[in-house]
Amino acid sequence: MDFVIIGGDAAGMSAASRAKRNQPELNVMVLEKTTDVSYSACGMPYNIADEARDIEDLVVRKASVFVDKQGINVMTGHPVDQIDPNQKTVSGTSVDGKAFQRHYDKLLIATGASPVLPKIPGIDLPGVFPLKSLEDGRRVKAFLYDHNVRRVVIIGMGYIALEMCEAFYKRDIKVAMVKPREQFLPWMPEDMAAVIKSDLEEHDVHIHTGQAIEKIDYQNGVYHVVCRNMVLEGDMVLVAMGVRPNSQLAIQGALALGPNDAIAVDKFMNTSQKDILAAGDCADAFHVVTGQRAWVPLALRANRAGWAAADTVLGNPTEIEGIAGTAAFKVFDLQVARTGLTVEEAASAGFNPESVIIQSRSKAHAHPGSSTIWVHMVGDKTSGRLLGAQMVGREGTAHRINAVAVALQNQMTVSHFSQADLAYAPPFGPVWDPTLTAANQLVKKL
Amino acid sequence: MDFVIIGGDAAGMSAASRAKRNQPELNVMVLEKTTDVSYSACGMPYNIADEARDIEDLVVRKASVFVDKQGINVMTGHPVDQIDPNQKTVSGTSVDGKAFQRHYDKLLIATGASPVLPKIPGIDLPGVFPLKSLEDGRRVKAFLYDHNVRRVVIIGMGYIALEMCEAFYKRDIKVAMVKPREQFLPWMPEDMAAVIKSDLEEHDVHIHTGQAIEKIDYQNGVYHVVCRNMVLEGDMVLVAMGVRPNSQLAIQGALALGPNDAIAVDKFMNTSQKDILAAGDCADAFHVVTGQRAWVPLALRANRAGWAAADTVLGNPTEIEGIAGTAAFKVFDLQVARTGLTVEEAASAGFNPESVIIQSRSKAHAHPGSSTIWVHMVGDKTSGRLLGAQMVGREGTAHRINAVAVALQNQMTVSHFSQADLAYAPPFGPVWDPTLTAANQLVKKL
Repeated sequence: MDFVIIGGDAAGMSAASRAKRNQPELNVMVLEKTTDVSYSACGMPYNIADEARDIEDLVVRKASVFVDKQGINVMTGHPVDQIDPNQKTVSGTSVDGKAFQRHYDKLLIATGASPVLPKIPGIDLPGVFPLKSLEDGRRVKAFLYDHNVRRVVIIGMGYIALEMCEAFYKRDIKVAMVKPREQFLPWMPEDMAAVIKSDLEEHDVHIHTGQAIEKIDYQNGVYHVVCRNMVLEGDMVLVAMGVRPNSQLAIQGALALGPNDAIAVDKFMNTSQKDILAAGDCADAFHVVTGQRAWVPLALRANRAGWAAADTVLGNPTEIEGIAGTAAFKVFDLQVARTGLTVEEAASAGFNPESVIIQSRSKAHAHPGSSTIWVHMVGDKTSGRLLGAQMVGREGTAHRINAVAVALQNQMTVSHFSQADLAYAPPFGPVWDPTLTAANQLVKKL
Repeated sequence: MDFVIIGGDAAGMSAASRAKRNQPELNVMVLEKTTDVSYSACGMPYNIADEARDIEDLVVRKASVFVDKQGINVMTGHPVDQIDPNQKTVSGTSVDGKAFQRHYDKLLIATGASPVLPKIPGIDLPGVFPLKSLEDGRRVKAFLYDHNVRRVVIIGMGYIALEMCEAFYKRDIKVAMVKPREQFLPWMPEDMAAVIKSDLEEHDVHIHTGQAIEKIDYQNGVYHVVCRNMVLEGDMVLVAMGVRPNSQLAIQGALALGPNDAIAVDKFMNTSQKDILAAGDCADAFHVVTGQRAWVPLALRANRAGWAAADTVLGNPTEIEGIAGTAAFKVFDLQVARTGLTVEEAASAGFNPESVIIQSRSKAHAHPGSSTIWVHMVGDKTSGRLLGAQMVGREGTAHRINAVAVALQNQMTVSHFSQADLAYAPPFGPVWDPTLTAANQLVKKL
């Protein structure tokens, strides 16, 4: 049986490895448009932060290893531009100019996502970079090596943008961030977003929100990001405005789409088309809180969906429960974490949301070195259900959010969660874990 | 109505405060045998570690504050030695020699636990200390101040003993630990206990297990802890062999007892005797995994049980779900955490346990500063249920255990938990959280 996978990153290679391992006689082929498979894209900001680190450190496993050790036929430089569900073929033209066509019995689309690039003049200038693929990372790092970059303009303020502020700071590069929307971190309560904002400003990051970006000019060795009311100058420009799913093949093949035009999949990674599956950042998922389709492109889901796709292909389907949208990131010394729904998302999904913001401490009463932890927790007044939480703190939020994520997976009420028997020791938190303090407060308002 | 509370620490003062706040006309009296109420006992090792810190820092709220600000009648120096459920009275003799008797309408026994002291000659020598009450902490700290203590012998190897190794190390005091049982940390798989053991040894802690302790001698300014086959010398001896519930009043009042002779309570903190409740370290609890009674004296449960007792007294009973036995502690640079059952406990409770030990990393692939995280996870072959986990690592285990604790509270299967949508970011862990890696491995064996 021919199992063809389009895309060789997290979802694609997870599927390939698991399928080949569990059924060695399977003919597994991966068609990857770039030269890279299996690398840690999320690690790029931390790698770029350190001039001495080789960007190739981020490669988890080279294509040749999959070929030689695992017997997976990995074809890099093979962008697929067409799928034919009737003929069960995929086709394209390889980077060396040769047309190719392959038959599949089962096809997995794992084409990932691409950076959103604003359609403005100058977006294709040589010192203007997105940061999504490893090749983007190579180009950024090479540019930093070749040029005396002292100032960078970052367009966008998502996870990657914020992580890159720290990376540039470590390389002694000043950062100005700009974006069209007014709110700095729209998914977080303003008070908590303000904590992150002032931490960035303390590290000399200049933040400009509500600035429509008109063009990027290059004059006398300097990039000018021209906004409606201001011009920001930099030796380099990073565009980090989020990503969109690579679902062009699905559209061409007439597959059903979900939110954000991600490829719609069921809980076994089947698309609407027989024998075609999709997994990873190009595909949607069911949200454990709403039960509805959602598109939240994150690495764990991509890996898990790759496994699930392999299991389905091998005739041993495993139902994937869904996502809670759990995420964490680091901004300088702050850990930011979220899971589930914001108040706005909860209202849109038909809940009757209520929420609290509490401040707690990262260590017990009188323990030295303690810092503030902020928790925002959202519940449903109608059902009493826990709907989501966001946390900010200098320590102890990135892992703490997981308890809330498991609570969401179990559709716990806030009251039920407030009874959780969580760990306590003075160096790690107060007797009442900050998430419990939030739940104790929230339960009174429901 | 007279609400009398025996014992003014976590459970007692939580109950008193909540009852008075929610029903200000209530007559709330707390009878406490010592001079201290409401302090952070768990913080003592960290306070003792720092010569410059005042031990009184650990007092969260003084008795006078409860009296003056909250209108709670706190009577320190009032040990109760008798309860009369028929007359509804409690009585005793105060430290200043006056007999007292009080009527109650509702009585809460919150007498806590006492350190286990071996019945050996020399246990009452002036340089031999338990470490449970704040008064113990004062005495230890004063002794360290008054004497040139360079070597300490710790009898016992539980949480407090291990935390005190670090405290003494910080004060440049050498530690020898000794205990009768052969196994170092019997509730943890040997390979993982060995990680902790070698960390202790690297900090110059000498560990002697399987040593029956016969007596403590004091000669020429040195304490000799005489064991069957060896003698350990120290300038001071700390006894940290665990605690037992203070249930003497319950025995005297003919109340039903639970495991370890803790006072048996239902999910509303009622004892077997009408109008008498119990909460905190003196009382038992239901275990969320076994559904059976268990005695696990820990601070969060004590606080929560105090609240629940107040709610019951006020006629607004709240069912407390139970404990998972979640705990964390720090030993030098290691974080140790546990929740739920060990393999042995699972077998005793009638499960058919299977377990895995996995090694993962504290940060993502290629991220600098990563260290090993060990996870031991236990599941039930018959039902597929998740039963417990233990973790050791330099970072990221104390909070991570909480996700497993919430899973236990929801009686999740290992397979269900393996689907949890946990947070990922390179500075905080691998794509697959170590607890998920353990679950993925364990699910294959069930």
